[in-house]
Amino acid sequence: MTTLTSILTRTSYRGKYDPTPVPREHLRQLLEAGVAAPSGCNKQTTSFIAVDDPALLNQLNAITESRIGKTAPAMILVLTRRVIAYRDRTYFVQDYAAAIENILLATVSLGYQSCWVEGKITDTDNIGRKMADVLGVPQEYELICYLPIGKAIEPTQKPVKQPFSERAWFNGFEKSE
Amino acid sequence: MTTLTSILTRTSYRGKYDPTPVPREHLRQLLEAGVAAPSGCNKQTTSFIAVDDPALLNQLNAITESRIGKTAPAMILVLTRRVIAYRDRTYFVQDYAAAIENILLATVSLGYQSCWVEGKITDTDNIGRKMADVLGVPQEYELICYLPIGKAIEPTQKPVKQPFSERAWFNGFEKSE
Repeated sequence: MTTLTSILTRTSYRGKYDPTPVPREHLRQLLEAGVAAPSGCNKQTTSFIAVDDPALLNQLNAITESRIGKTAPAMILVLTRRVIAYRDRTYFVQDYAAAIENILLATVSLGYQSCWVEGKITDTDNIGRKMADVLGVPQEYELICYLPIGKAIEPTQKPVKQPFSERAWFNGFEKSE
Repeated sequence: MTTLTSILTRTSYRGKYDPTPVPREHLRQLLEAGVAAPSGCNKQTTSFIAVDDPALLNQLNAITESRIGKTAPAMILVLTRRVIAYRDRTYFVQDYAAAIENILLATVSLGYQSCWVEGKITDTDNIGRKMADVLGVPQEYELICYLPIGKAIEPTQKPVKQPFSERAWFNGFEKSE
């Protein structure tokens, strides 16, 4: 699939998934897409765990208590470390967001759907840490996002967005030319 | 260009650019790629200004005092607003990072190069605000990144990265299977 098509058709899929396993070759391509993302000062603060073991998926879904991706045959978990990149600054959020977007686009390009689930697991109830513990992730890594991966069996939906002219301009703020 | 090829060949280009103008149609596709990015709770916190006016480009490059993108025939400026998405949280950084990655991948797919320049203009010397003033951007928007756009006339370079096996695993931390 072309890059622009993936970008324009990607959407957050919250429906049910076909239970057919995702081939390891595809999961590996998705992880490679994550690894290929840029990172501030090349600090590579983001790491990834793909899960396709059904028992592990059940354990993780029991922790999230979420219907999003519950039926997906695979999941990618995104880990980060708050490494200082420059003076006193860390770009770990930018790094993992770019990596997640790469994985989402690669997912669409291979015919799968996904959804960026972050807010629910990074709240004060520390669901991300509970998921990390199941996977043996050390304390210095934070598990900040999960991405269900699989084929959709329900229609995808596009959210309503502001028109282009309210968000993108040429040669000056709110200028259309 | 396929999605996976764009993802795997994208790199941060800091060399000189061909001065040939970027067609408006291409700039518009890059902005559409930015607009199409996901945002936390669909708050759409990111906006964009494409600049191809040579006098404006000169003004902006004089402010940054950077050699990165100085010869590029176009530039995309990324604006953000810290909108609360959920409880007391804003996902503005995740939002703009995903949008920037979309634009970078679309840039590569159309045969251009770019570089994510953020740290230099978001430091305490407020270069981003000076650039925003030139473009008439109101105070409630922060200009946090610029992306030079154009054809490369020097070879692109890949940074040295940690091996895949140190950043991506299956079914558990540092597990290869």
